[in-house]
Amino acid sequence: MDMRRLVGLNFSRIRKARGLTQEGLSEISGFTQQYISDLERGRRNPTVVTLFHLASALDVEPYELLVESES
Amino acid sequence: MDMRRLVGLNFSRIRKARGLTQEGLSEISGFTQQYISDLERGRRNPTVVTLFHLASALDVEPYELLVESES
Repeated sequence: MDMRRLVGLNFSRIRKARGLTQEGLSEISGFTQQYISDLERGRRNPTVVTLFHLASALDVEPYELLVESES
Repeated sequence: MDMRRLVGLNFSRIRKARGLTQEGLSEISGFTQQYISDLERGRRNPTVVTLFHLASALDVEPYELLVESES
């Protein structure tokens, strides 16, 4: 699977599991709602440093955004 | 740990475990020896797409380059 799509799918799944909307997450993370929306649609290609900040916003480890989950 | 350093340490550890030199890996991967050297010293900030190609060069999953190993 394309990495941008994988990161987007994982990020969206975890965000929803945390009960957060894109708007809500943007307020607490410093990422714009547009960036989050683009990311979740596989339209962003974040660096590993940005991945760290994205993972921190969801309180997960960065590698968790790159794991291909069975679901 | 800084993500650039983490990726570098993991990449170097796995490369050596594969018995590959930086020069040898650069010949089979398309990454220059300079890039590999910089990466392993934590001087590069690869995107997730580049991370996929780096992981493929070592025949590991991309997330394995982001896991904080105990060793």
